[in-house]
Amino acid sequence: MRYKVAVIQNDITRDKTNNLSHISELIISASERADIIVLPEMFNCPYNGKTFIKYAEEFPGETCNLLERLAKEKQCLIIGGSIPELEGVAIYNTTYVYGPMGFVAKYRKMYLFDVDIIGQITFKESDYVKAGNDIVVFEYENLKIGLSICYDIRFPELARALVDQGAQVIVVPAAFNTTTGPIHWALTARGRAVDNQVYYIMASPARSESLSYKAYGHSMIVSPWGEVLSEGGIEETIIYGEVDTEYISKIRKELPLLQHRKQR
Amino acid sequence: MRYKVAVIQNDITRDKTNNLSHISELIISASERADIIVLPEMFNCPYNGKTFIKYAEEFPGETCNLLERLAKEKQCLIIGGSIPELEGVAIYNTTYVYGPMGFVAKYRKMYLFDVDIIGQITFKESDYVKAGNDIVVFEYENLKIGLSICYDIRFPELARALVDQGAQVIVVPAAFNTTTGPIHWALTARGRAVDNQVYYIMASPARSESLSYKAYGHSMIVSPWGEVLSEGGIEETIIYGEVDTEYISKIRKELPLLQHRKQR
Repeated sequence: MRYKVAVIQNDITRDKTNNLSHISELIISASERADIIVLPEMFNCPYNGKTFIKYAEEFPGETCNLLERLAKEKQCLIIGGSIPELEGVAIYNTTYVYGPMGFVAKYRKMYLFDVDIIGQITFKESDYVKAGNDIVVFEYENLKIGLSICYDIRFPELARALVDQGAQVIVVPAAFNTTTGPIHWALTARGRAVDNQVYYIMASPARSESLSYKAYGHSMIVSPWGEVLSEGGIEETIIYGEVDTEYISKIRKELPLLQHRKQR
Repeated sequence: MRYKVAVIQNDITRDKTNNLSHISELIISASERADIIVLPEMFNCPYNGKTFIKYAEEFPGETCNLLERLAKEKQCLIIGGSIPELEGVAIYNTTYVYGPMGFVAKYRKMYLFDVDIIGQITFKESDYVKAGNDIVVFEYENLKIGLSICYDIRFPELARALVDQGAQVIVVPAAFNTTTGPIHWALTARGRAVDNQVYYIMASPARSESLSYKAYGHSMIVSPWGEVLSEGGIEETIIYGEVDTEYISKIRKELPLLQHRKQR
């Protein structure tokens, strides 16, 4: 089976209404060529811990309603990057997924981005966001898709857990930065794809000159052999590619890494 | 602490006596600039399952005796790639390590290379070699070194097990081939180094036109940030680099991946 995939690397502003109407146009455009549409992390707001609360929504809020309507209208799967989800007093960094029949899945980021790279980047996501606990793999037209968000990709154990639940594709809405992006973004996606013999779909926002957080960009689709099938630059773009489940089977048979694993 | 490392990428022939006298010269040369000397997988024989038995040694055989003598004479640590080890009727793919005081450690390859990439490479190591069961991390002058051999590097669980036992450096004698080498060799070493915040030292034989197995070459030293510090080509060479434990500590503090792990 083959699936056509689009990754939207959108420009983000501080104006949520504007972000939603803009992403709506991009989704409509992508739906002309793709069945599966992937959005980046925090696609409806700037990636800034202090202001997440301003953009946060209780489920189902206006962003979810928009994704649901578009998935039905365009008869496609929308993996809605992530948005700040409000539940009680907690904010989560959450992916919502909608298909032609409505709600499909949600996933809350498990590993929070708390780093302090001297002279480069300091970010403490856990000051603003609560970590999720649930591993999520869902099925869409016989394709098993696992979810991770950004810093989650750093942890091989999570990729293994997704593969143990049958994932053939791992989708990673993310906003790497300009310090770790150039050296770790493609490396980690490609390495994880090869280790786990799955496609990796990496979705970043476009880099913005006006926002404080500089996203790395370079959204990409990576094959289970580690090839970069499609890659964006730093500006707004939609990239396209294909997921081929027969290719996954071929790789898993020829180089039987998953079969050769040992219990530890 | 800083440690000077040399990786020997040697030419291998079918003549074991010749291989041993040649590696001896290379070790003596490397010992002039390095305290830790790393040799490649099956450095005393061709990488050919059918003929391992011809070159195999019961411990301690002539290869081990040579490494022991040189480590004492040159006052260095020699991580002896691997050789076919004979025990009873079984052959193992085994690393022996010697230091100035004699025997330090041995490690038997755990994951055997059984692949069948159509039209490219077919190899079934398990027809000839028995797998080891023991994870090995040893200490040398306050530096903790974990061992893996070639295909072992494919498995993130093993790297984690080595790091859990304190490894700061993972040494990988290996003989990747010309199919997987170009796309997976540096990728896997660099990705694993970043995930586990350790140095990776990858030692390959030189490529030989006269032997049937074409080794990829490209021995390399990789930093815990994923930088390639030093890299060979396909011909015989000795590459040099440095392991800096303060740099490991800096990386682990700034990007605290090992601290952020969760139990699975």
